[in-house]
Amino acid sequence: MVRWEGEAMKVIYYQDNKVIMLDQRLLPHKEIYREFEDHQGVAEAIKEMVIRGAPAIGVAGAYGMAIGAKNLKTDNFSDFLKKLKQIGAGLAYARPTAVNLSWAVKRMIKKAKNLHGKSIDEIKDELLKEAFKIHQETYETDRKIGQFGATLIKDGDTILTHCNAGMLATAGYGTAIGVIKSAYETKKRIYVFVDETRPFLQGARLTAYELKEAKIPFALICDNMAGYYMSNGYINLVIVGADRIAKNGDTANKIGTLTLAILAKYYKIPFYVAAPLSTVDLTAISWRDILIEQRDPKEVSHICGIPIAPDNIEIYNPAFDVTPHRLITAIITEKGIIYPPYTKSLKEAFRH
Amino acid sequence: MVRWEGEAMKVIYYQDNKVIMLDQRLLPHKEIYREFEDHQGVAEAIKEMVIRGAPAIGVAGAYGMAIGAKNLKTDNFSDFLKKLKQIGAGLAYARPTAVNLSWAVKRMIKKAKNLHGKSIDEIKDELLKEAFKIHQETYETDRKIGQFGATLIKDGDTILTHCNAGMLATAGYGTAIGVIKSAYETKKRIYVFVDETRPFLQGARLTAYELKEAKIPFALICDNMAGYYMSNGYINLVIVGADRIAKNGDTANKIGTLTLAILAKYYKIPFYVAAPLSTVDLTAISWRDILIEQRDPKEVSHICGIPIAPDNIEIYNPAFDVTPHRLITAIITEKGIIYPPYTKSLKEAFRH
Repeated sequence: MVRWEGEAMKVIYYQDNKVIMLDQRLLPHKEIYREFEDHQGVAEAIKEMVIRGAPAIGVAGAYGMAIGAKNLKTDNFSDFLKKLKQIGAGLAYARPTAVNLSWAVKRMIKKAKNLHGKSIDEIKDELLKEAFKIHQETYETDRKIGQFGATLIKDGDTILTHCNAGMLATAGYGTAIGVIKSAYETKKRIYVFVDETRPFLQGARLTAYELKEAKIPFALICDNMAGYYMSNGYINLVIVGADRIAKNGDTANKIGTLTLAILAKYYKIPFYVAAPLSTVDLTAISWRDILIEQRDPKEVSHICGIPIAPDNIEIYNPAFDVTPHRLITAIITEKGIIYPPYTKSLKEAFRH
Repeated sequence: MVRWEGEAMKVIYYQDNKVIMLDQRLLPHKEIYREFEDHQGVAEAIKEMVIRGAPAIGVAGAYGMAIGAKNLKTDNFSDFLKKLKQIGAGLAYARPTAVNLSWAVKRMIKKAKNLHGKSIDEIKDELLKEAFKIHQETYETDRKIGQFGATLIKDGDTILTHCNAGMLATAGYGTAIGVIKSAYETKKRIYVFVDETRPFLQGARLTAYELKEAKIPFALICDNMAGYYMSNGYINLVIVGADRIAKNGDTANKIGTLTLAILAKYYKIPFYVAAPLSTVDLTAISWRDILIEQRDPKEVSHICGIPIAPDNIEIYNPAFDVTPHRLITAIITEKGIIYPPYTKSLKEAFRH
């Protein structure tokens, strides 16, 4: 079981041949852990958003592969590898748009291949170790992002964040929230404004929960209040996470991010994206190559199962928007803070 | 009882010594009318948002004054006037930001003063007639705003609106929604994007309800999606109502309006305010003179009574923001379309 010093809660872990996850759908009012004894259960949990956030579902995918391998009844390596690939396909299919999930699956299969010649039992143990390693690396990447990002925050700053780019989203330390926590650890006096983040309320439910646990002072606001608090000079900087970053720096993130970037530009407030380099999709040249998925209209029309609008009306529910690179002051990665022009600076970050 | 042709529903009316209001808090799923027999009940209803929208609470304030006067037990004019002023103070205090409420209260007091010499019973009857007149004028003003505003909408336009500036907000025909309905009446093919308008969801609950009733095609979105649809070129213009307009054109309106104005500026989309001249507060030089009320944090932390955030956290809930005059393309009034510079053009509108 991976566990790091000062860890407030376990988002996902592996123990006694089970993958155990905090059910994020029930937060903040219920902390219920779900146990999964096979890879099918893990895939279902990813699909049903028991766990969410691109890096976190990568970690879940890795544990899913490890437990799937553990349960395989064969002593033949080629049979083992064939079945492992089938398990991987099932896991990757649970959230097909998430790059980190298929990345983790591929890495686990590659690991198995490299162990050809060892006993199946040894390979099973090594695969579990690889899942722990992926989990550990996620945490370490987050810590580096946090340390670099904290240098951008001054004592007394008030920071606006959107959605949840915290430990719940990465199963590590968090990206945008990791930066905020790192600044707080260095005794900077900070205050955070948390957008509730409609329709799924990740800000109200998850970020508020994480900041409360971390004892960092914050206030919850509705998404449409950010402009008001910028106009009053309350907000010094904006930090958000990212779901996908194109080669030119255009950044897809939770719906509402683009609006915050435009507001920040208008009020001359720095706008930062915090994300691991694994979020950069080198096959996407710009925003044109990023598909924005429309989610279930019921996320908008119903809150906690209660209808808030007339029945049988048209509803749009885009899950993300893309912030053009020219609105982004800098991208905070585990390799350092990346400044424009991003086509050049992101390329350099990958080289080092 | 004031009633006009084609009226779809009664937002507020006076009958049998009662002020009767449609409880807007329960829309769109329940159409319940509340009856109030005294001015305290009316003030409470305004405060608790049984009725809301600047012009509508002006009408409610007028009826509140009429029923308060009716219930006064005195035959002495100066005593009557003194008590009427106290009633007025209590009503005006119920919602401090909207200017129409105190405007209606002042007009009722002025009317009473002008009736000095008549019997108290006659004055009471005249005050009720004045309230009816205010209500009737509200409708006629809305129709004129609609006619002027409709000239700004082209066939095929998609219009974004925020909150509810419809008949539910004015107890007449609507201001921003009145413009949209007027354009639709002239057979222009239009489409409307409706912001849900957190925290009170006036867009999802009320505007969606009114547009559905009027059979005008629309889609409901979350507030943070407006930027995305502007970035895609879907939206041709923005029209909103107003709670208070300063002499220089700075406009207080539902929280989130400022953000839309900044987005519209960024994407070079016209941004219109539709409001009667009674919304203009000549004592307010600019935004500095407009008080923004903070409402109950529970409006943010709970939806339909269900908590959506951790308990015992800090929450901000400003009800309004102020859009600076330089972001407003034009103000649509009953005297015509007013263009910048507003200090000059608003002054002229009052003169005619």
